[in-house]
Amino acid sequence: MTEKHKIQQAEIEFAQVRKDIDAVDAKLVGLIAERQKLTAKVGQLKATLKLPLYVPSREKALIQQKRALGKSLSVSPDLVEDVLRRIMRDSYSNQNMTRAAAMQNKKLSQSRNILVIGGKGQLGSLFVALFKQAGYVVDVIEQDDWTKADGLFAKASMVMVAVPIRVTEEVIKKLTALPESCVLLDVTSVKQAPLSAMLESHKGPVVGLHPMFGPDIGHLAKQTIVVCHGRKAEQYQWLLEQLTIWGAELCEVDAKQHDHLMSIVQVLRHFSTVAYGYHLQQENIDLDKVLQLSSPIYRLELIMVGRLFAQDSTLYSDIIFSDPGNVAMVKRFLQRMMELLEMLESQDKVAFSSLFDQVSEWFADYAEQFLQESNLMLAKANDIKK
Amino acid sequence: MTEKHKIQQAEIEFAQVRKDIDAVDAKLVGLIAERQKLTAKVGQLKATLKLPLYVPSREKALIQQKRALGKSLSVSPDLVEDVLRRIMRDSYSNQNMTRAAAMQNKKLSQSRNILVIGGKGQLGSLFVALFKQAGYVVDVIEQDDWTKADGLFAKASMVMVAVPIRVTEEVIKKLTALPESCVLLDVTSVKQAPLSAMLESHKGPVVGLHPMFGPDIGHLAKQTIVVCHGRKAEQYQWLLEQLTIWGAELCEVDAKQHDHLMSIVQVLRHFSTVAYGYHLQQENIDLDKVLQLSSPIYRLELIMVGRLFAQDSTLYSDIIFSDPGNVAMVKRFLQRMMELLEMLESQDKVAFSSLFDQVSEWFADYAEQFLQESNLMLAKANDIKK
Repeated sequence: MTEKHKIQQAEIEFAQVRKDIDAVDAKLVGLIAERQKLTAKVGQLKATLKLPLYVPSREKALIQQKRALGKSLSVSPDLVEDVLRRIMRDSYSNQNMTRAAAMQNKKLSQSRNILVIGGKGQLGSLFVALFKQAGYVVDVIEQDDWTKADGLFAKASMVMVAVPIRVTEEVIKKLTALPESCVLLDVTSVKQAPLSAMLESHKGPVVGLHPMFGPDIGHLAKQTIVVCHGRKAEQYQWLLEQLTIWGAELCEVDAKQHDHLMSIVQVLRHFSTVAYGYHLQQENIDLDKVLQLSSPIYRLELIMVGRLFAQDSTLYSDIIFSDPGNVAMVKRFLQRMMELLEMLESQDKVAFSSLFDQVSEWFADYAEQFLQESNLMLAKANDIKK
Repeated sequence: MTEKHKIQQAEIEFAQVRKDIDAVDAKLVGLIAERQKLTAKVGQLKATLKLPLYVPSREKALIQQKRALGKSLSVSPDLVEDVLRRIMRDSYSNQNMTRAAAMQNKKLSQSRNILVIGGKGQLGSLFVALFKQAGYVVDVIEQDDWTKADGLFAKASMVMVAVPIRVTEEVIKKLTALPESCVLLDVTSVKQAPLSAMLESHKGPVVGLHPMFGPDIGHLAKQTIVVCHGRKAEQYQWLLEQLTIWGAELCEVDAKQHDHLMSIVQVLRHFSTVAYGYHLQQENIDLDKVLQLSSPIYRLELIMVGRLFAQDSTLYSDIIFSDPGNVAMVKRFLQRMMELLEMLESQDKVAFSSLFDQVSEWFADYAEQFLQESNLMLAKANDIKK
């Protein structure tokens, strides 16, 4: 066969293989559609059978099986797992399934009246929608509109405080006339102060929740909700059960420990991120150019900073300014940055290395685990690069 | 139908639907296997036809088509795109395809001898493997073993300096006897100093590269490489062509601008991250507990910190200590943090908000774009939650 002939042959084959790939991709999309019809059906049947929406053990078994199948066909098990998890995510947020799961436990919702204060806010309205779908009778009042409040309080089985953090305590202080059996709860991102305020205002069952997700999530499957117990836990057990049925993972923690950990994880991160955004602006760096030459890791860090500034500043100032104790925490952090700066100024690489090693030791096995996990994330970040 | 009968019926159906889902998933894995065989074939044909491995326009067209198909079948187009991109990533790193693409341009590799100084290091060995696969004759010497250096210099068409940043200039200073036509380049993450040193030592073609990815990537498809031109660009055009054939995206930038942007993006981020890790250790927070109650966003931030400490401290100290100008940059950043701290101490929320808004304005449309992009990433982060 001549070189020219060989190339002609290859061109014909190339066109054919591309057609074959297109056909495979079309079949793939068809299979996803078929799977979604089946999971919608699962949602309905789970409603009838009163089974929870999200069952970690079933998900795990299913994925293990298909990983093994992938391996036997020379397909990377990680690829199989990633694809399946991505498809499953969509079936969790699929309306049919959520609604079905929400409807499934009539016993929970029967004759329960829920009042959400701040129910038109972002997080409040998410809970209002979920409760309504599940068959509860839901009323909403806003923080500054108490005209119909008295009548609603009298019949409430549960009052949820979902107002901005800066007015949470103020609102709770007004809740002194709830029925004794009424469950009082808040969903603020700090827990000590609101919980004390609730225990003070109300003699009945009290619980503090901190939903660890943004309000745009739309469903609770696999989302973490922190639970800080207040009083008479047996009387709000039905609420925790309802959250679990929706797929949420509950994490019980002491309010004081919660606030301490959050002051580091949440307050300090927000503070540093605002400072870094401010720094970028003051240095007036060329964002276009930076993005062009950023590796996935720097791009990821940059978008995590920039995302803050697309949001309402009060979301962040409320959290950062919520607790005077945060000042001391931030000061200690700045102190540590200055220690590092001194090493840099005196070009003391030895001190830097020994500090670094000491921190590595403290992270122990987590460092390696985080490296693996972040590598997965960075590969995914590169996937979405256009 | 009685309630009991209805439930029995639902149980039977439920078992059947689960079987159906399993069958669909098995078909899905089978299709992925079939697709991978086809893309391996594409790799071979591309080698024959001398076509580049990664063709952004083809990828885009294919995805648009399948998004539309998804929509017509009531499958979320974003879901279709995510699944396809994930499958495509594996075909880029698939050995057959990379090798085929690497082999394809014999003209480039013919009678070219490449010498990699530091070729046993992480980044060096990646390039050694790629060049070898592509048919180049590749030799390796280490920074401290110059016994056979003279003979290798004499026949080299290209010398790549891939030693740690702290010894890069020192190594370059020794390279005064290369053939006039030999291409000299480095792959250090700072560019001004090595580029000047190379232009000083060598009279022939000179170029500085900064590969914007970790050495564990294994393939170059969709990876960014920064190119800082030195001298006689026409004589290293073949190298840039080779990188493009491997799928890399080249980003040309002035060495000074590169170093300025990197001092913010890279140096300052590393510095802050080390400081934050140090802070976590000093506060001795309960990492287990923090992880349990972290939302996807805090978990992501935490793993991006922890990953650093699984790595060699010199990787980071070399970058942070590389340029005395970094001290001033870090000082300006600390100054800004202290401005913010003052606002916090005096509970001046108004000043905080106005600073925040000013930064938002500066980010302009990028803030919203980053918010969208990071939401995609966070959803993916939640997918991998076990």
